[in-house]
Amino acid sequence: MIDLELENEIFELIENKGFQKLKQILSELNPADIAVILDDIEEKDLALVFRILPKELASEVFVEMESDRQQFLIEKFTDKELKSVMDELFMDDAVDIIDEMPASVAKRILAQADAATRKVINQLLAYPDDCAGSIMTTEYIDLKKSMTVADAFDRIRKRGVDSEMIYTCYVTDARRHILGIVSVKDLLLNSYDAVIDDIMEDNIIFAHTHDDKEEVAAMFEKYDLMALPVVDKENRLIGIVTVDDAIDVLQEAATEDMEMMAAILPTDKPYLKTGIFQTFKSRIFWLLILMISATFTGAIISSFEENLTVVPALIAFIPMLMNTAGNGGSQSSVTVIRALSLGDIEFSDIFKVVWKELRVALICSAALSVVNFAKMYLIDYLIFHNFDPGRHIAEILVVSITLFIAIIVAKVVGSILPIVAKKLGADPAVMASPFITTIVDAVSLIVYFNVAVLILNI
Amino acid sequence: MIDLELENEIFELIENKGFQKLKQILSELNPADIAVILDDIEEKDLALVFRILPKELASEVFVEMESDRQQFLIEKFTDKELKSVMDELFMDDAVDIIDEMPASVAKRILAQADAATRKVINQLLAYPDDCAGSIMTTEYIDLKKSMTVADAFDRIRKRGVDSEMIYTCYVTDARRHILGIVSVKDLLLNSYDAVIDDIMEDNIIFAHTHDDKEEVAAMFEKYDLMALPVVDKENRLIGIVTVDDAIDVLQEAATEDMEMMAAILPTDKPYLKTGIFQTFKSRIFWLLILMISATFTGAIISSFEENLTVVPALIAFIPMLMNTAGNGGSQSSVTVIRALSLGDIEFSDIFKVVWKELRVALICSAALSVVNFAKMYLIDYLIFHNFDPGRHIAEILVVSITLFIAIIVAKVVGSILPIVAKKLGADPAVMASPFITTIVDAVSLIVYFNVAVLILNI
Repeated sequence: MIDLELENEIFELIENKGFQKLKQILSELNPADIAVILDDIEEKDLALVFRILPKELASEVFVEMESDRQQFLIEKFTDKELKSVMDELFMDDAVDIIDEMPASVAKRILAQADAATRKVINQLLAYPDDCAGSIMTTEYIDLKKSMTVADAFDRIRKRGVDSEMIYTCYVTDARRHILGIVSVKDLLLNSYDAVIDDIMEDNIIFAHTHDDKEEVAAMFEKYDLMALPVVDKENRLIGIVTVDDAIDVLQEAATEDMEMMAAILPTDKPYLKTGIFQTFKSRIFWLLILMISATFTGAIISSFEENLTVVPALIAFIPMLMNTAGNGGSQSSVTVIRALSLGDIEFSDIFKVVWKELRVALICSAALSVVNFAKMYLIDYLIFHNFDPGRHIAEILVVSITLFIAIIVAKVVGSILPIVAKKLGADPAVMASPFITTIVDAVSLIVYFNVAVLILNI
Repeated sequence: MIDLELENEIFELIENKGFQKLKQILSELNPADIAVILDDIEEKDLALVFRILPKELASEVFVEMESDRQQFLIEKFTDKELKSVMDELFMDDAVDIIDEMPASVAKRILAQADAATRKVINQLLAYPDDCAGSIMTTEYIDLKKSMTVADAFDRIRKRGVDSEMIYTCYVTDARRHILGIVSVKDLLLNSYDAVIDDIMEDNIIFAHTHDDKEEVAAMFEKYDLMALPVVDKENRLIGIVTVDDAIDVLQEAATEDMEMMAAILPTDKPYLKTGIFQTFKSRIFWLLILMISATFTGAIISSFEENLTVVPALIAFIPMLMNTAGNGGSQSSVTVIRALSLGDIEFSDIFKVVWKELRVALICSAALSVVNFAKMYLIDYLIFHNFDPGRHIAEILVVSITLFIAIIVAKVVGSILPIVAKKLGADPAVMASPFITTIVDAVSLIVYFNVAVLILNI
């Protein structure tokens, strides 16, 4: 936690090259806070300030920085500096950094690692970005079941410094199959001569290297995990996922869903770090698609143009009908999309979902129609004199009936499409509000004009 | 992890009262999985099945169940059973359960607790639902700085069973002020006679009891924490928040934001557990507000009705203009809302944000206008003959110019409103798409008709 005053003092010290004092201040701070500062200072000062950090802290700060800043620093580093920073990193962090670098920089980093590390890094890099393998680390504490608690503590002391998560230990056999897990809490609460085999938990929650990383992250939420073992196809322990990475995945997934709900192509950078053109690219795609697809709604209106000139009062209610139905549809689609990603519903629930949405839609559309009728009669007719006095009731009915039908269609379509999308292997969130709205717009207009023709005989 | 086959076997055993075998199977399962099953079985079997669970497991399962199921069970429990379940719970879980119960049930639960526990529970219940105090637990390991590592281990062994998180220990003085933190990793990697004062970390990240719980949860993400100490106004250590609760808060916050973005009042129950009428209530409020507020757009259209009957071709483009501007606006508002809740931007960034959005909007609207002009000329004019041949260019220009202006307004308004809302102490997400869309709709129509009057001289 860092306040504005301290931040200003730091920026002043950088400006005035007060590196002695600066070093002292930075050494007291948390790596994540220092990274925020380094992401903000001018490029010319970056390498200078980074170099005054103590070695271990420097690596911890480096991990937290933005990737363009990391790249800038790596390009300034001597080979020795690069090796020193990379040596301190946990394997999964090293892989994440390399993954973001251009090939030439990645190659230079790998050249600093010893052959064994390079092999592991290359294996981890090979996992697709959306699977558990891509977020796991290979550094964990493994135990044998014949060990005693005292042996286990010895092993933790020996391996601990290099392991990201020492509080859950994995008991494996000679072929690296997991037999059980032991928490350090179990170790602490048992006597030193207790045997691991007797105290380990053998009902293990685990994931496979190629499982979807969002589903793996959701397991942390469901089972309150701190770490999760990851096995390969032969059920051999390959690595572990730690809770901090699971949180990042859950947050990224939520951000992505929101972006898709707002017709944005997902970007994975913080808002202010994304360039103008990159932001433009992430937004223009759906705007264009949705704009052009509005040709349909335009065509529908055009084909009823003559009817509209007969009863021009109907034009004024087009936006209200489209928006209300659109809102109703996106309420359903967003609810279902979120329930799918939280694991609250799955494909087999589709009938339960539709049945529920149908009943909710009926009450919603009934309420809206009634309120709309009253509102149109009181405001639009009595105050604004918007309708032909002779058939104002009929005209108001047209709008209310359309509203009733359109909301029901919108909610049912909005709830079905995301579930179907998931079943087909697509991301349910692509079926979010803008997409649904386009369908619902067309449906609302067709219903509107047909009801109008029918009731008003135009 | 539980497969369909096992689930069916369990349901069959319940049906046929095969309790011996059932007990054996359930004892091997994870509490969260058993809770899912108990949430699904018929009420008449619930108490029966719950009672066959071993005591400790029973409490772990109880915590994970839905609150209506918990209430049902509590009402079936004898006082002794109730006490046995509640005694095994961590303090924060007990408080969460009581918080959800009707007053009479809560009172009965509290009556089972001893005076000291009751006092703590009542203190925790008093914290508002949105603050750190409401998600913290009072069970943690505290150490004194004069202790050695060996002393610390002794204390953990003694206190450990009752503490939710033993891996971070808190060093306090006689008045309970935090002096430092020590992780069990630090303890394990130092010799037994090392003194806590020498190995503790005194740069502590902490929260206050009344800090917003979403901001506290975000600190877990930023600093990769497993637990966070919470202090009162006098800086005395009151409790800790653990990472599992932080994850729940982050996920709930994301769900809430999505709901608000889709014009839904937040509910805190899983989709299929929410009743029809409750879902209706969470949806109808905004639908009504937005429907009635569409009176403005209706009034705008009505006031230009005569112009529209002169150039009826313009009517067909109303939905496209409103939707495209609405989509553009919600892209900006959703991006800004998410960036605010991730802590990527704050109020002081408002000018940076507006300047960025303005530039992105300029490129987006330029691209959309050009494509729209081409599309209207090629499709609407050449194919559908939608315009007066004499002044078709002018008519197409009206639509394209409106699009250009509306997108810019939409994006700037969409980015400013959430930031201003947050500054005013409101949830930025109330300024999400449906709200923005209503403003943007009105602006688009006013711009449209004025541009039309100006260019077409109607």
